[in-house]
Amino acid sequence: MGAKLSKYDLDTPALVLDARALRNNIEQMARFFSGQRAKLRPHAKTHKCPQIARLQLEAGAIGITCAKLGEAEALADVASDILIANQVVGAQKLARLVALRRRADVMVAVDCREHVDALSQAAWAAGATLRVLVEVDVGMGRCGVASAEEALELARIVSRAPGLRFCGLQGYEGHAVMIPDPGKRRETAEAAMAYLVGVRRYIEGHGLPVEIVSGGGTGTYNITGAYPGVDEVQAGSYATMDAKYAGIVPEFQPALTVLCTVISRPAADRAILDAGLKAVTSEFGMPLVVGLEEVQCRRLAEEHAILEGPGASKLRVGDKVELIPSHGCTTINLHERYYVLEGETVVDEWPIAARGRCQ
Amino acid sequence: MGAKLSKYDLDTPALVLDARALRNNIEQMARFFSGQRAKLRPHAKTHKCPQIARLQLEAGAIGITCAKLGEAEALADVASDILIANQVVGAQKLARLVALRRRADVMVAVDCREHVDALSQAAWAAGATLRVLVEVDVGMGRCGVASAEEALELARIVSRAPGLRFCGLQGYEGHAVMIPDPGKRRETAEAAMAYLVGVRRYIEGHGLPVEIVSGGGTGTYNITGAYPGVDEVQAGSYATMDAKYAGIVPEFQPALTVLCTVISRPAADRAILDAGLKAVTSEFGMPLVVGLEEVQCRRLAEEHAILEGPGASKLRVGDKVELIPSHGCTTINLHERYYVLEGETVVDEWPIAARGRCQ
Repeated sequence: MGAKLSKYDLDTPALVLDARALRNNIEQMARFFSGQRAKLRPHAKTHKCPQIARLQLEAGAIGITCAKLGEAEALADVASDILIANQVVGAQKLARLVALRRRADVMVAVDCREHVDALSQAAWAAGATLRVLVEVDVGMGRCGVASAEEALELARIVSRAPGLRFCGLQGYEGHAVMIPDPGKRRETAEAAMAYLVGVRRYIEGHGLPVEIVSGGGTGTYNITGAYPGVDEVQAGSYATMDAKYAGIVPEFQPALTVLCTVISRPAADRAILDAGLKAVTSEFGMPLVVGLEEVQCRRLAEEHAILEGPGASKLRVGDKVELIPSHGCTTINLHERYYVLEGETVVDEWPIAARGRCQ
Repeated sequence: MGAKLSKYDLDTPALVLDARALRNNIEQMARFFSGQRAKLRPHAKTHKCPQIARLQLEAGAIGITCAKLGEAEALADVASDILIANQVVGAQKLARLVALRRRADVMVAVDCREHVDALSQAAWAAGATLRVLVEVDVGMGRCGVASAEEALELARIVSRAPGLRFCGLQGYEGHAVMIPDPGKRRETAEAAMAYLVGVRRYIEGHGLPVEIVSGGGTGTYNITGAYPGVDEVQAGSYATMDAKYAGIVPEFQPALTVLCTVISRPAADRAILDAGLKAVTSEFGMPLVVGLEEVQCRRLAEEHAILEGPGASKLRVGDKVELIPSHGCTTINLHERYYVLEGETVVDEWPIAARGRCQ
């Protein structure tokens, strides 16, 4: 880039990323895992960005996790070892999956025989080998087999299926990661991992080696990542962070904000920003307003954030205001690029290459 | 397109649009306005698509409404008369706005002197003329001046400002459009329009002509559109529709669905779809499941819809399921294209050209 641009010169709404906070978060997480037997395989569904994945890999991550095949395709140039932590279903996707195998060593989750049969057929026809994790429901009530017996049965089917290699188990304690109370969060996560590692032992006890047990998220990285018998942790939000996780894992710093402009000050206690639900999401609550006293985001319309409180009186039309999204993952997915800051200087633009790749 | 593709052959999640329902909705709305003095200026923030804007204009719409300058830029090839129904603030945007003036006759909203001064300076410097509406807060508590006196004062400032032409007033009764009870909705909308038209009369009474009074949304099109003294209605959602408005204006048909695949059936009463918050939004509630009995969408995770109920037992991994989004505007903004259907045949793909254009 040419002349130095300040973040306050950016047109808005703009998704800005503090490079120092990002690096600190990546280093902080790498430090934790350097002392553990478990390894970090960061979830790229949050950042969706090759540049951030590369920083995580350079800091010691063993590969990346993706939610969708489309994300994996967008990130395969920087990551050679990719877990797609979901079921991949349908003829088009299976064709893409075996094609992706030529660019990266992929691993996918299954939780029923139909998945195994279809994956095996596609892999076998392409002369490829796909690594497979059996997903176990560890209490979240989403996907996954419901018992150790079912897990063993499916693991055996995978291990006999042409073109597939049974690698182990996945169990996501999504019902634990956002419990505010640390003791209750630990208790819930440990119960989930006790169950998952129990399934591991059960399968191993029946003579089938389990190489990988994968789980965890940003809210439980230090619980699940330290739990004996867990090999890989899929934390994602820690790198960019958001307002929801800030109260749960304060050792990571918010690196991500949405830079906005005050477009209206219709009352002394109300200011309107030019960013609404199409620039910052609300399912985890309202975004936080950075650095302003006595003013809060009360409501998000489609294209407006409504700030209220006595502090709004200090704002003028044209002022720039930053919001910390309550949920980074879905907010990032609304934007095309990060404006990367060192201090207040814009030093780079990084594409959100996997934005919208929900297929 | 080549061989006929069924919608069930589409990879998922896919945003599909029933062309017949879309045409019916556009015709239905055009029929209403053919009997009114007020004109329809459909809001393109919902569909963000040149092809749909063109259908609306062909059916008699006098122009389009946009929420953002970026949307107007994306749609200026099909619409020559565009209202940007918000305040446009900041040097970069003003430069783009006057540049856009070469492609379309644009009109923008203001609610304070700072807007007028900046617009006037930009328009004057470019030798352009911009049409201006003074925004009035009609009870929604977002943007807009707070009284008839303020509106008159600002209208006078606009009318004297070089490069600007005072055209009238805008007032959005956003607090009325989604009131479920028809009587209460009418009462609230009519009170808002009585106030707005009162402001019109006040300004006219002081010798300033008011050419346009603009308001309305899909939920109030037939109230606001029939209200004496209202000239233009900005309804947007009626064309594609969504689950929230389906209960409010049942004369329009849901034309928009998100086609999904069942990726897991972990329990008899639970099925998991491959579309979550990154493919269908939740701020207006859960999406509706099309054509399946005794099964509902209980929860949206980032990449999963969790369906529950005894009806889930009939679903198999690989089955396709359609969801009607609760909020079309924000759901459409997640996708790159519509797959356009005639019956069950995919006949076209239309780009969501203004997707993500929140600047």
